[in-house]
Parts: sequence; structure tokens; C-alpha cells
Amino acid sequence: MGEKLIVIGGTAAGLSAASKAKRVKPDMEITVFEKSGYISYGACGLPYFVGGMIDSPDDLVSLTVDQVTNKRGIPTYIHHEATKIDREHKTVTVVNLDSGEESVHPYDKLVIATGARPIRPNIPGIDADGVYYLRTVEDGIRLKAVVQAEGKKRAVIVGGGFIGLEVAEEMALSGVEVHVYELMPRLLPFLDESFSQLVRDTLEQHGVHVHTGCGVEAVLEQDGKACGVRVTGGEELAVDFVLMSIGVVPNSELARDAGLALGIKGTIAVDDELRTSDPDIWACGDCVQMKNRITGEAVHVPLGTTANKQGRIAGDNVAGAHDTFKGVLGSMVTKVFDLYISATGLSLDQAKKAGFDAVTSMITKGDRASYYPGSRDNKICLVLDRKTGRLLGAQGVGSESIAGRINVFVAAITCGMTVSEVNELDLVYAPPVAPVYDPILIAASQAMKKVDRQEG
Amino acid sequence: MGEKLIVIGGTAAGLSAASKAKRVKPDMEITVFEKSGYISYGACGLPYFVGGMIDSPDDLVSLTVDQVTNKRGIPTYIHHEATKIDREHKTVTVVNLDSGEESVHPYDKLVIATGARPIRPNIPGIDADGVYYLRTVEDGIRLKAVVQAEGKKRAVIVGGGFIGLEVAEEMALSGVEVHVYELMPRLLPFLDESFSQLVRDTLEQHGVHVHTGCGVEAVLEQDGKACGVRVTGGEELAVDFVLMSIGVVPNSELARDAGLALGIKGTIAVDDELRTSDPDIWACGDCVQMKNRITGEAVHVPLGTTANKQGRIAGDNVAGAHDTFKGVLGSMVTKVFDLYISATGLSLDQAKKAGFDAVTSMITKGDRASYYPGSRDNKICLVLDRKTGRLLGAQGVGSESIAGRINVFVAAITCGMTVSEVNELDLVYAPPVAPVYDPILIAASQAMKKVDRQEG
Repeated sequence: MGEKLIVIGGTAAGLSAASKAKRVKPDMEITVFEKSGYISYGACGLPYFVGGMIDSPDDLVSLTVDQVTNKRGIPTYIHHEATKIDREHKTVTVVNLDSGEESVHPYDKLVIATGARPIRPNIPGIDADGVYYLRTVEDGIRLKAVVQAEGKKRAVIVGGGFIGLEVAEEMALSGVEVHVYELMPRLLPFLDESFSQLVRDTLEQHGVHVHTGCGVEAVLEQDGKACGVRVTGGEELAVDFVLMSIGVVPNSELARDAGLALGIKGTIAVDDELRTSDPDIWACGDCVQMKNRITGEAVHVPLGTTANKQGRIAGDNVAGAHDTFKGVLGSMVTKVFDLYISATGLSLDQAKKAGFDAVTSMITKGDRASYYPGSRDNKICLVLDRKTGRLLGAQGVGSESIAGRINVFVAAITCGMTVSEVNELDLVYAPPVAPVYDPILIAASQAMKKVDRQEG
Repeated sequence: MGEKLIVIGGTAAGLSAASKAKRVKPDMEITVFEKSGYISYGACGLPYFVGGMIDSPDDLVSLTVDQVTNKRGIPTYIHHEATKIDREHKTVTVVNLDSGEESVHPYDKLVIATGARPIRPNIPGIDADGVYYLRTVEDGIRLKAVVQAEGKKRAVIVGGGFIGLEVAEEMALSGVEVHVYELMPRLLPFLDESFSQLVRDTLEQHGVHVHTGCGVEAVLEQDGKACGVRVTGGEELAVDFVLMSIGVVPNSELARDAGLALGIKGTIAVDDELRTSDPDIWACGDCVQMKNRITGEAVHVPLGTTANKQGRIAGDNVAGAHDTFKGVLGSMVTKVFDLYISATGLSLDQAKKAGFDAVTSMITKGDRASYYPGSRDNKICLVLDRKTGRLLGAQGVGSESIAGRINVFVAAITCGMTVSEVNELDLVYAPPVAPVYDPILIAASQAMKKVDRQEG
């Protein structure tokens, strides 16, 4: 009989871990418990499901319970919540949320992939009907119903992070009057200020109302139903519904109650092999602490790509390997309407905080040969160490091709390249896809001017 | 009085060198002589000028003679051909091609940027009217006139390299019946065979006739005008005009006659600082020998990006610096109709020849989240060293985004990354621009399976 592995959580990290472990060690007896009604779904696609670009929630799902259970041989249960880990007896207590039935399952090894949940601010009216979140497929179905309902509606989105802005786009395209409230002085504040402004301009050009430096202090209700918000300063705005999108917190209570070590911001602490403080328990995905790949500093950057990668590594290690997760750069891309925004590595503030003598360098350059039709500007802002010229971060806005360009900087930062080394890259060129000096090279070449001249 | 610098050649390399030297050392007296009637033009845009997507030849020109002469302070002469370098007396003899007048110019330093010219095969009928080349703006104007002339025409393109194929696309879109003859058994033979086939399929789907393993042995003429071709095997095809596009040879006669050392394939030999065998003479661009950045082997890969980069380096060094050109990876991208093709580094054959125990690994993956509308397949073929996992080459076909993806491999190869290190890159992700596992990561992850397992 094989070892018993229990995996708590059946989305990106958990299912990747279970699948990997099964591939490596087919005789392992693996069981997955998932609290929600869906496994293996692309949460990052939820804004586009809400907006109607994606029809069915099933389209977001890459594997069904039946496929995982019967084809992969991994019994998988939805609507099953793990409520207790007993490390002494090596059991997990699980509640069937449909029947209320409780059961206790022994394990040899355990993977915790409980993810994160939206922050629910402690403000008046937060429990009213008409206050939405967007994290699970069920959240998406609820929000889509109200967004796509007949009639003119007004919505408030609390939080101008990139998920809030993706939903703002999709709601506006669905005919909703959208107001975004962001407590920080600008949208996406990790971006260069001019880029934040471009994002705001783009949203406003498409009819989205953006309010920065302004939070929502209360949800106003009538008969238990949200009917407005009161914002910083006391002004009130009548609305039909509210989306709370001010970030997430890790679901680490189960681990904490089992006595596992925690990290920053309530995350579960893990080593590079994603092992918790208990040698038979691994954790991965949005619930764990990560490290920044440049600074080594502990961070919590819950993203789908990381969750998937960590899941595979945890699964491999559960099956006996010693793979390590190298950390995150905080790489991201998003779009609002026709503007693509992408970033990786440290922002100027982060670089300074980490002790670098950091400066930025900014360029604007067309994404094709100037004479080739359809060229659009790419703007790139590099963050670099003034003393050594080492590249620390890169941000870009412009056409879709900015994503590929930022990915080149991901590789460059990962290798510890200087801007001068980036400037020497033999990048591809043809008029329909790039100017002869790619924006990447222009950015690097301009940034070289910010580097202290070496003597002699 | 400043030093006298003469630059022979006023396109990508020559004008970059002159401009850079002037910026660094403004008191240098710089003169540029260009044989053709145009300077500073984007030769890579010529196919799109011929096809009519670009209206005027002026659109291809980024700087005029007047701008360079008067704004940059670099006297520049078109239709002036350098005919002799006298190294002993440090002079260059120049002929004004309009007046026939000859003049002799003293130099302290000299930059040779004479470029390359199309190969003119020694076959019957090659001198007939109606045999075209595409290298200079003048070539483009001539070819465009016949392509865009009224009436149904049939053309033969001799050579299925990427310039030939770009022109094939543009001619077909202009209503010309196009026949491409390629002597090699397949198009773009540095590509994986399946990619060559995809290129061929795409051309044929758009009505281009592709003949591989078949060369043109004679141009048939009537009254001095090309009226057909005779191909391998003796078959004859009636045509209205012929484009010869079988590659280029470096314009190195001037350097050779001056006694400068030559490299492979008739190139001018230069060191890493782009200095020739004469310490007062630099050479750059399509006329010089380069080295492959992976193998260090001498190569001749004449491309516009390299010419521009080398020009800057030569200009900087003429002005006293000691910049080095690091070599080429042979990075390229092109498109035929809606198929984009990109490659960098070594092909399997090149890697084997260079002594690597090389293997390839191939994947197909959508370029967006599967549920996001408009996803198109990217196919990526990696070349890697079986023993170490070191990445040696990458090729891709698919949507426009393949160019950005191959550029990530450019950075990875430049840094000497293994496929396992590529697999750990924290790339950007959002459903509209990538699947959660980017095709880059899928390619790296699949390639890892080809690497010899290390002993425990």
C-alpha cells in the first residue's frame, strides 16, 4: 500500500501538487478536498467571465472532478472543508458542506494549498446584500448576474488594483456606470507615476470614474440591500451594487491552529522546498510566504503563475524530490481597454528600501518600424543600480507586445544583467514587429547614461 | 583643428558610426561618402514599399543628406563612390558618379561601411531587362514599378530565404502570380523541418507557388527582355519578370585592394573593437566578419540590427573608446501573411557541428489562456545540450507574440541559461496575453526531459 497524501485545496497549487505527486509516485494514495464547488479553474479569467467574453464557468475549468478522480486516479471532493489538522495523530478533519457530515482522514504526508480570500473591511454595511467579491467561480456567477442584468446600473469598485481595474473595464463594456475608489493617491502605485496617470486617462476616456486618495467608509443600506456608499470626506453616492477588491489575506488559520510556523502577513512559513515547520507537511500557493528573487526579502505576492509552479514543486518534493522554489520577481501584466501594463522586479521605492542606490530611466519608442503601419508607442521605465548598472526592475505600458518585452527583462534581471549587457542583446528585428532598435535596447541604452562612469 | 574622419557608406553602419563619433568628439571633421542616392534608409522595409504598404521611398529614410550635413554637422555626399584607399598617404579617392569627377581626400581615421550586394549568379540571361534585385532604395523603386503596373503578371523569385518570402507575400498581395524557386530541399532550412513545412503551407494557401530542390538555370530572353526561366530538370516557365534573391556578398574589394586582411566569405576581418588590420581603419556592418556569440566561430550574418550596433561601436572607438562587439546569435523574425517566424541561436545542425551533444524539443501551446478569445498556437522548438541542459537555440512560429518569446530565449542564451533555469523564470501572466504556463515555460519544461539525468 502506498503512502497516503492529503491535499487541502483543489485549485492551482493544490491540484498541481496532487497531479505531480501522482505522476512521480503512482502508488501514492492521494485525496484532494476543496471547499468550493469548483476545482482547477482559471481565477484570472473571472473578470472576462463577468464581462461576458467568456460564456460559461465551465470554460474556466481545465479539469473536472470526474477527470481528476477517474482519469488521474486522485479522489477529489468539492464542498469539503478541512477544519482541523491533528499533527500528533496525523489526521485531517473534513466537513462535507452539503450534508454537514464530519469525517477524519489519516495522512502520511500533507499539502496545504488553502489559498487566500478577499479582504472584508470592517465598515458599516459590509454585510448588506449587493456587496460582492471576486475570487471564486461562485463569486463570479453572482457578480455576473447583477452586471449583466437588464437596465442601467451604477457600481462602485472599492480598490484600484489590477483586478479591480480589469473588472472596471469589463463592467464598463457591459454598460455599467463604474466608479473606482482607491485610497492611495494613485492607481497601481508600484508603477511609475506617469504610467499610473496613463492608466487613469485610459479608464476615464472609456467612461470609468476614477477617485483616488479616497476610500469607502460605509456601505449605505436600505432593507438590508446596498444602495450607496459614503466615501472619505463624507460624500455619498447612490449605487446599485458594490465590488470589494482591496486585496487578499492568506487562508492560514488551519495551519496556525495546527501550530505550524507562520510568516509575514499571516502567511504560512515554508522553506525553499516549500516544507512547513512540520517535516511531513508542505504548503504552496497564495497561502504561503515567498521570497523576492532579487532581495531575498520575505514577500506575499499571490499570483496564479506562482501557485501553479509551487504546486508542481511541492508535489515533486512530497514524492521524494528536493526541488526548490527560487522566489518571485512580482512579474505582472494586465490590460485596461487598449492599454497594456506590465512590470517585473523592484519599483524605485522598493529598490531604495532594499538599499540600492537606485535610479529610473524612461523611454518612449514605437513598437514597430516607424514607417510600418500600425506602430504604437511602448513606454518603458527601468529601475537600475546607479553604481553597478545592474537592472533591478522594468515597467512598461503600451501595446500588447509590451508583455513580451517585459519578459525579456525578467530573464535579464534573473541573470543579474547590467543595462549595458541588455543593450548588447542580439534581439530579433523585422519592420512588422519591432523598430531596428527595439524599445528594449533603447531603454537599456538610455539607462546606461544614469550609471556612474567607471574611472579609467 | 580636429582629426579628419572619412566614412565610406551612409546607410545603417556608416551613418551610425559618423553620428556617434560626432557626438563623442564634436571637433572631429567627419565626411560621409555614399555611392547610392539615399542614406540612412530602412532596407528591411523595402518589401513593404514594393507591396505598396509604404507609399514613398522617403518614408523609409530616417535622415536626409541635408539633416546630416547641416544639423549634425557631418558633410555627406550621395552618388559618391570611394574607389581607392591609399593607406600610405592616408587618402581616399572618390568619384562623383553624376559628374565623373575624381577627388582625393586625406584622412586621419577611416571607417569602411560598404555593406553587401546581392549575389548575381553567372547564368545565361542574367543581364536581361526584367531581372531585378532588392537591396537599395533604387532597386525598390524599380521593382515596385513593375509589381504595381497594370495587368496580370507572373513573377519568379529565385531564392526562398526570408527576404524572398517577404517579397513573395507582398507581390501576391499585389495580385502577381508568384513562383518561388529554392535550390535547397526546403524553405528557410535553418528551421526545424516541420516549421519549414508550415511556412510553405502558408504561402501555398495564399496562392504562392513554391518549388524546392529546384534552381533557375537560365533566364530566357526575347529582345533583351526576360520572358521566362529554365529550371533544374529543363522545364521552362514563361514569366514577366524575375527577382534574384539568393543572398549577398560583402563589398570588400576596396579593403582588399588596400591590402587589409580579409575574413571568411570575402568579409573584411576586424577585431572585437571592429578595427581592421590597419590601426587607423575600422569596418562595420554587412561587409565585416562577425563571430557567433555561442561558439565564437567566424560567421557572416548581415542584418540591419547588427549593422546599427556595430556602427555605434565603431564610431565610439574611432573617437577613442574601446567598446567591443560581442557577436551575433543570428536572431531573426519575419512574417509570411499571418504566420510569424522567429529564431535565435544555433539550429540542431549548427549545434552538432559545433561539437555539442545537441537535441531538440518541440511544443505547441496557445498564446493566450485557452478560454480567452483569439488564442493562437505558438510552436516552439528548442535546441539544447543533452549533457548540461544548456539552451543553444530557439525557433518559433505562430502569432506575432512569437517574436517577444524568442527574445526571451535571446536573453537566456546570452546568459548561458539551462532549460531548467528558463523553466524557473517568473514571467508575466494575464489571460489576454498568455496562458498561465507561458509557451516559453512549457518549451523549457518539455526540454528538461531531454537532459541526461544527473546521478543522485
